[in-house]
Amino acid sequence: METAYFDHAASSWPKPPEVVSAMQDVMLHYAANPGRGSHRMAVQASRTLFEARRNLAKLFRIKNPNDISFTLNTTMALNQAILGFVKPGDHVVCTAVEHNSVRRPLEFLKQTRGIHITYVATDSTGALTVDEVRDAIRPETTLMVCSHSSNLLGSILPVAELGQLCRDRKIRLLVDAAQTAGTLEVDVVQMGIDMLAFPGHKGLLGPQGTGGLYVAPDLELTPLLYGGTGSQSEAIEQPTVRPDRYESGTQNTVGIAGLNEGVKFVLHETVEQIHKREWNHTQRIMDALMSTNGVTVLGPQLGRDKTGIVSFNVHQADSSEVAFILDQSFQIAVRAGYHCTPLAHATAGTMDRGAVRASVGYYTSDEEVDRLITAVREIAKHLG
Amino acid sequence: METAYFDHAASSWPKPPEVVSAMQDVMLHYAANPGRGSHRMAVQASRTLFEARRNLAKLFRIKNPNDISFTLNTTMALNQAILGFVKPGDHVVCTAVEHNSVRRPLEFLKQTRGIHITYVATDSTGALTVDEVRDAIRPETTLMVCSHSSNLLGSILPVAELGQLCRDRKIRLLVDAAQTAGTLEVDVVQMGIDMLAFPGHKGLLGPQGTGGLYVAPDLELTPLLYGGTGSQSEAIEQPTVRPDRYESGTQNTVGIAGLNEGVKFVLHETVEQIHKREWNHTQRIMDALMSTNGVTVLGPQLGRDKTGIVSFNVHQADSSEVAFILDQSFQIAVRAGYHCTPLAHATAGTMDRGAVRASVGYYTSDEEVDRLITAVREIAKHLG
Repeated sequence: METAYFDHAASSWPKPPEVVSAMQDVMLHYAANPGRGSHRMAVQASRTLFEARRNLAKLFRIKNPNDISFTLNTTMALNQAILGFVKPGDHVVCTAVEHNSVRRPLEFLKQTRGIHITYVATDSTGALTVDEVRDAIRPETTLMVCSHSSNLLGSILPVAELGQLCRDRKIRLLVDAAQTAGTLEVDVVQMGIDMLAFPGHKGLLGPQGTGGLYVAPDLELTPLLYGGTGSQSEAIEQPTVRPDRYESGTQNTVGIAGLNEGVKFVLHETVEQIHKREWNHTQRIMDALMSTNGVTVLGPQLGRDKTGIVSFNVHQADSSEVAFILDQSFQIAVRAGYHCTPLAHATAGTMDRGAVRASVGYYTSDEEVDRLITAVREIAKHLG
Repeated sequence: METAYFDHAASSWPKPPEVVSAMQDVMLHYAANPGRGSHRMAVQASRTLFEARRNLAKLFRIKNPNDISFTLNTTMALNQAILGFVKPGDHVVCTAVEHNSVRRPLEFLKQTRGIHITYVATDSTGALTVDEVRDAIRPETTLMVCSHSSNLLGSILPVAELGQLCRDRKIRLLVDAAQTAGTLEVDVVQMGIDMLAFPGHKGLLGPQGTGGLYVAPDLELTPLLYGGTGSQSEAIEQPTVRPDRYESGTQNTVGIAGLNEGVKFVLHETVEQIHKREWNHTQRIMDALMSTNGVTVLGPQLGRDKTGIVSFNVHQADSSEVAFILDQSFQIAVRAGYHCTPLAHATAGTMDRGAVRASVGYYTSDEEVDRLITAVREIAKHLG
């Protein structure tokens, strides 16, 4: 039996065949260093990076592809944004459903640089009220950090409204698109996003080891890494030219070649269609689980807009027990635990046992959805 | 005609077939998140990372594989080491042949945290005298940073002696093994190395996007990145447990699976044999170029130990011109310019035009060496 894979919110799988073959092509034919030599193979590597940047720019409506820099993962992008932007004494507003990759760098700065943080709560379904954010803003607020969608609850946060608010108050907006890049429309200009952190290996259907950060052209960050850039080698200081400023050392050419194909696939299928498809699957799962005795579904109500995440608990069982049974007895891959977002669990009232998270992706099939529903119903009966 | 590839010091190419097939296997069969779920595919991903760590530990004689953390590249590893270790007021000793990935983070700290740096010069061939390092040490010296081999000159630096000196003076030693991991013996215990930064895509024959940092068990660094670790999700602070402390966010499973195969290949071929093979090639190239009218070879003299790098200039021509002709007229890939190491060029007297760097690797053949020699001789005649 094939694994029914419901862990797309961690990493999507499988990938489009073009992603796999583009990576193999790099490994076999031009695994040289982009920007580090003028020979043909190095030029080919540079071109791959540029093409990926151009396609990402198209997807997120970014004017200049060089405003995108590649990173190892979303966490690295968020750290570059937060540690590179926030100054001592600054006040930062963020939501209570942020991932640890936002919360931990902020708390580190609180301890070491004396910054101030306000976590604005969402309601128990993960909905955020813009008025509450407005109330949290102080004169010394310089940054708002917001997930586009909660990685626990799947709720969609009002990024465009926050963008308007931030523009009005001259606050910069950093958006964590870990759960939405490739599955929900992102338009950095229209939404007023100053910095956008995104993964390559989730909705963009690329491989692990890829991600990136968009930085608005009028914003300059302290780099996270200092080193070889292939440009201005003779200068002691990190160059200011982009993307070099935020891309030190050899880049993951093979991974980015795969990511480029993933992005092209998404552009071709369209984000709108992918979102619709995922939404239909989540609605069917939610509908079935909500009518199952002993199953509690977290997040937005049925019929509401959301991303491809359905988190739930079964009776009073620990979430890891349920996930273990799904894996061992049904060969269904989900994720259990705290999903690196403790405050969201506090919000949802699941601090004691975490939650089982089933997340769908582009390749999720109706049959897999049926298998998940049947399995959870059996487990609920068994544990009841 | 196939490209004759002499840019192994930037990225080795081609890779062992096992590297390419292991990566494809990950992409097709288990591209899930290591440490982020308990389902089979995630467990398989975790195992791959652990196996790579274990093989790297075997190669570098590291006792506990968890003292190795993976990074995007060597630059990220060096930044983690330097930015995570050096405190305000510290004095750091390093050599004048360090890469910008050492020099730039140190200079950043000099400007922002008031640290002090002494660059100990090498002679024009890249040889370092331990006595001069000893003289540079002050009571407030806490760190010595040293390349194992100059990426411009190919000279080997006396790491074991420096290790002894640092131990005696209670100074920590950070070694940049960008040019030696996989091609020269590294034994962290015997050499007294406290931190070792290494690339995955050069001598270890893995893909770009991989690298790592070894941190001695009695040393704790401030993390470079804060975020999701899959462990202790409920804690606000970055966990202290390794490797999680220095590995935030989703890791590059596919790249690390490839790296694992590269390391296994090196362990099987043995570092000693690989070094011997590369040394023979460099000697033949040097011998031929030194007897060619108008060619100046940099670095250690013929017969001396060195890594697989031969840097040279032809008459008074700019290095990029020579590299361009090699690429366009002979399909030979070398690298020209400053190689991210300006002080080494000052040492070698090549600040005006850089240098052409030809670097050999495991797969370099006698025929390729012949092609390179013939081509450089023709260019020298032509430009003479």
